[in-house]
Amino acid sequence: MFLYNKQVKEIQMEDKTKSKGELVFIGLGLYDEMDITQRGLQEIKKCDRVYAEFYTSKLVGLKDDQLGEKIGRTVTILNRDDVEKGDEILSRAQHEHVVLLVPGDPMTATTHIDLRLRALKKGIPTRVIHNSSIITAAPGLFGLQSYKFGRSTTLVLPEGNYFPVSPYHVIKENKERGLHTLVLLDIQSDKGRFMTANEGINLLLRLEKQVKGNVLSEDTLICVASRVGSPGRLHFMEIEALITIAHMPLESAEKIQKI
Amino acid sequence: MFLYNKQVKEIQMEDKTKSKGELVFIGLGLYDEMDITQRGLQEIKKCDRVYAEFYTSKLVGLKDDQLGEKIGRTVTILNRDDVEKGDEILSRAQHEHVVLLVPGDPMTATTHIDLRLRALKKGIPTRVIHNSSIITAAPGLFGLQSYKFGRSTTLVLPEGNYFPVSPYHVIKENKERGLHTLVLLDIQSDKGRFMTANEGINLLLRLEKQVKGNVLSEDTLICVASRVGSPGRLHFMEIEALITIAHMPLESAEKIQKI
Repeated sequence: MFLYNKQVKEIQMEDKTKSKGELVFIGLGLYDEMDITQRGLQEIKKCDRVYAEFYTSKLVGLKDDQLGEKIGRTVTILNRDDVEKGDEILSRAQHEHVVLLVPGDPMTATTHIDLRLRALKKGIPTRVIHNSSIITAAPGLFGLQSYKFGRSTTLVLPEGNYFPVSPYHVIKENKERGLHTLVLLDIQSDKGRFMTANEGINLLLRLEKQVKGNVLSEDTLICVASRVGSPGRLHFMEIEALITIAHMPLESAEKIQKI
Repeated sequence: MFLYNKQVKEIQMEDKTKSKGELVFIGLGLYDEMDITQRGLQEIKKCDRVYAEFYTSKLVGLKDDQLGEKIGRTVTILNRDDVEKGDEILSRAQHEHVVLLVPGDPMTATTHIDLRLRALKKGIPTRVIHNSSIITAAPGLFGLQSYKFGRSTTLVLPEGNYFPVSPYHVIKENKERGLHTLVLLDIQSDKGRFMTANEGINLLLRLEKQVKGNVLSEDTLICVASRVGSPGRLHFMEIEALITIAHMPLESAEKIQKI
């Protein structure tokens, strides 16, 4: 009888803690599974189900399918459609403690805000566990001050005739106010397309030729960041290499040395 | 003889790995020690010496002097002068593997960029381990889109007659372009002064009266974030409470419900 009561009590307690689902967005940071915070890891360990998406961005140092093994949980990877429709994850989150792992800091992508809104409308409580984002990491790495940045923009991969001019206008607007612009490069993970810095620069120069706003030329100083979050030492040897091998102008080298 | 050689070899290996110092900036994130990343923790465990500073910002969920105990290392807490002069940390980092723990994401504060520059000039290699920053976390929590934010600004605690007008102009500039502004509130940890949201709002209204740029009024919608990084569920009860108790207008409630 006592045992029975104890069991009932345990079931009741379990019901109380598990009866209501929730959706927790956890940022994965920038590079690989080592960027997960202690708080994020704790949440991953105790939740009922782990989803992840890599279509808004990629972790450069980790293959998507290795994440589960690295964090010791089965991870269901959602594609763009799964996240945008959100049917599976939202119906699970009504009854279970569900985690969605996303690259960078959650909620910097519109799609996460949208998913969160739909969860809240269904009465599903949500929480956000933050992590690093390219939006603060990149300026910092260049030694540039974040309050000297205007609004950021994304260069979209051209699709036939579709190629928005808006990034050019954002850069122009910022430049006129003496502000830097963080230009994010588009990815289309499902098609395996990732814009390289060279492609991005060429697209910007193409926009200059098209709009003729006198914003960009081949002399414009553009700083390129990739593999951010993979801590590497800054070697003066690398600058020497850039001067000797890539014919980087000395003035640029002086600027880089100040970073 | 064999033992002697083994010992010499070990000493040489130790020399080799420890002979050159380095300075690693590690972001602590937003709330408490649970925000440290796996990569940050690994670095803390293997370094020779751990410093921390809390004058550029505070971890709201953790008392400064508890950090050492929580991460299992002795932590020397540096004050503003120590970081700005940097003598101790830089002379240590010439020979030791030194870590500096900083709130948020390192390098968003000018003082960290400055310290890094001085380290590099002394030939000390540096690395940065990123973490979450209020700059991306706050917009995301409000459901606002990061590319709709113009440059950010800091409201400085007035000191006698010293009270810069620049934040007002930044808000004006952004508003004219249809952009939001992230307004950071000043802290002076050494004096135990932390600007509250109410003080900040009053200072902004004071600036409006002074400059008369027609930017802010008592009807302006200002979103306030505090204790960011402490994951709390969003309860509709809280909104009801705000309407009932704090007489929040219904239109504001509708906006908040969309978050």
